[in-house]
Amino acid sequence: MPSADNGPVVILAGGGCLPRQLADHLLSEGRTFRLLAFRGFADRDVRARADAVVNLLDLKAIEAQLRIWKPALITLAGAVHRPSAAALFGAFTLFANRQEIRTIISKGDDNLLRGAVSILEGNGFRVTGVHELMPGVTASVGVLGRVMPTVEDRAVISVGFRVLQALSPFDVGQAVAVSGERVLAIEGPEGTDRMLRRTNAVQRHFFLSRPSLRGALVKAAKAGQDLRFDMPAIGPRTVREAHKAGLNGVAIGAGTSLIVDIDETIAVADRLGLYLVGAIPPWQESKIMERADA
Amino acid sequence: MPSADNGPVVILAGGGCLPRQLADHLLSEGRTFRLLAFRGFADRDVRARADAVVNLLDLKAIEAQLRIWKPALITLAGAVHRPSAAALFGAFTLFANRQEIRTIISKGDDNLLRGAVSILEGNGFRVTGVHELMPGVTASVGVLGRVMPTVEDRAVISVGFRVLQALSPFDVGQAVAVSGERVLAIEGPEGTDRMLRRTNAVQRHFFLSRPSLRGALVKAAKAGQDLRFDMPAIGPRTVREAHKAGLNGVAIGAGTSLIVDIDETIAVADRLGLYLVGAIPPWQESKIMERADA
Repeated sequence: MPSADNGPVVILAGGGCLPRQLADHLLSEGRTFRLLAFRGFADRDVRARADAVVNLLDLKAIEAQLRIWKPALITLAGAVHRPSAAALFGAFTLFANRQEIRTIISKGDDNLLRGAVSILEGNGFRVTGVHELMPGVTASVGVLGRVMPTVEDRAVISVGFRVLQALSPFDVGQAVAVSGERVLAIEGPEGTDRMLRRTNAVQRHFFLSRPSLRGALVKAAKAGQDLRFDMPAIGPRTVREAHKAGLNGVAIGAGTSLIVDIDETIAVADRLGLYLVGAIPPWQESKIMERADA
Repeated sequence: MPSADNGPVVILAGGGCLPRQLADHLLSEGRTFRLLAFRGFADRDVRARADAVVNLLDLKAIEAQLRIWKPALITLAGAVHRPSAAALFGAFTLFANRQEIRTIISKGDDNLLRGAVSILEGNGFRVTGVHELMPGVTASVGVLGRVMPTVEDRAVISVGFRVLQALSPFDVGQAVAVSGERVLAIEGPEGTDRMLRRTNAVQRHFFLSRPSLRGALVKAAKAGQDLRFDMPAIGPRTVREAHKAGLNGVAIGAGTSLIVDIDETIAVADRLGLYLVGAIPPWQESKIMERADA
């Protein structure tokens, strides 16, 4: 059994500042950890303080490293669902041909990450979610900043959640931009930031000048999503991009989404006049009801 | 009653070459018609041969013109669902403020066009679909070009239709790009061509070089969609963009989608090696079954 209760937490570090935040959190708790950064994904400063840097698709190297460290727990922190050219270049050297990579990737983000987790578990490792190690990082229910959403804003949020619910059986993004009853954009493999930039372009096309249409970014984990990987996340940059896209608020699934750098995220929302709401998506509500009934 | 049985067909002409194609078709049938082109949408050559050019949102001018012509039938041909800056500039002069326009547009394409049709009908006009006037323009069932889709291709098409089905309650685009089980892009207000350019960018990001991943563009009318306006359409350019996006086929809803310039569309698909398929979407299938049962 490679997992040992007295072993370190291993952070498999993808993009963004979440790996750094988690590392700092574990440090503050005095918990032993190792940082394994994915080449082409992890930020430069995360790579700089990493104990090892590996290629995302080099499962042999990852496993060998894990067997040395004997982790109590492994967690995936940060985005890895948009392999960059650099990451794939690395991976190409390990496979017979590009077709193999294409086959893996064509099956979608969900399958890719689910596959990685089940390989790790199949090898006896214990995999946990970032939210289990750092509970305060998930969005709580309610209005998180100073700006209150209006009744109309709440209707927009509801449309967004319903779109995400309809899409949950499919391997597609976790976010949607809605204005009124109109769906402005649905996230694909490009990620939330790029989707918001597209929304910006659409809005400009409609309104000539700087967009100022009301609307919301709605982001949430899918129904039944394994929160140990690819947990929806927002941060200060998300709020800035939402503002640029002409939206006046951000709603995220409470309890199942991460807010990276929460103080700064709220400060940015307050400064730009956007509401920031943690809400229970409809599919989550019924789950809570079921639990209450049981 | 403004509609007269011996009156002309009035073509309300939006973008693309469909209005021209319909006008030529009616001409070849010896049917009297009038061409009312929307400023900012109709192509230059359509505007040049139009009997009148109006602003899309200038309902008073449109109605006045229609009362003069006393049409037997009115039909909407060509895209109007992405108001250009020019069109909106025109409209702004007719409304008290931008907010009013924003309110109309925020309700979405469907509502905008449905509203226009019901205003016309409320005034006693008869509105019909392009497919009623030119039956050969809709996609028929089956493989339309020389390239046959494989079993894998058919699985991809099926994912595409299921995504569109899930989204049908919402005001969002009619097309989706799918590769394997992964949804590469869902059309928003930007339209199919721009969605495909985005797919291209996503594919390039994944594969470094010219994309060559298999995948399909799937486009179909929504369940219960009123086919008198905003009928899904493809043409030669759509096939070219799908090819550039790294897709190897196009599937459209048979009977409820238009193929503009069908000979050239098939020729382009054959030349580029893409399959072109007219398929009955799952929600349409059950409808056909219901009818058969009745």
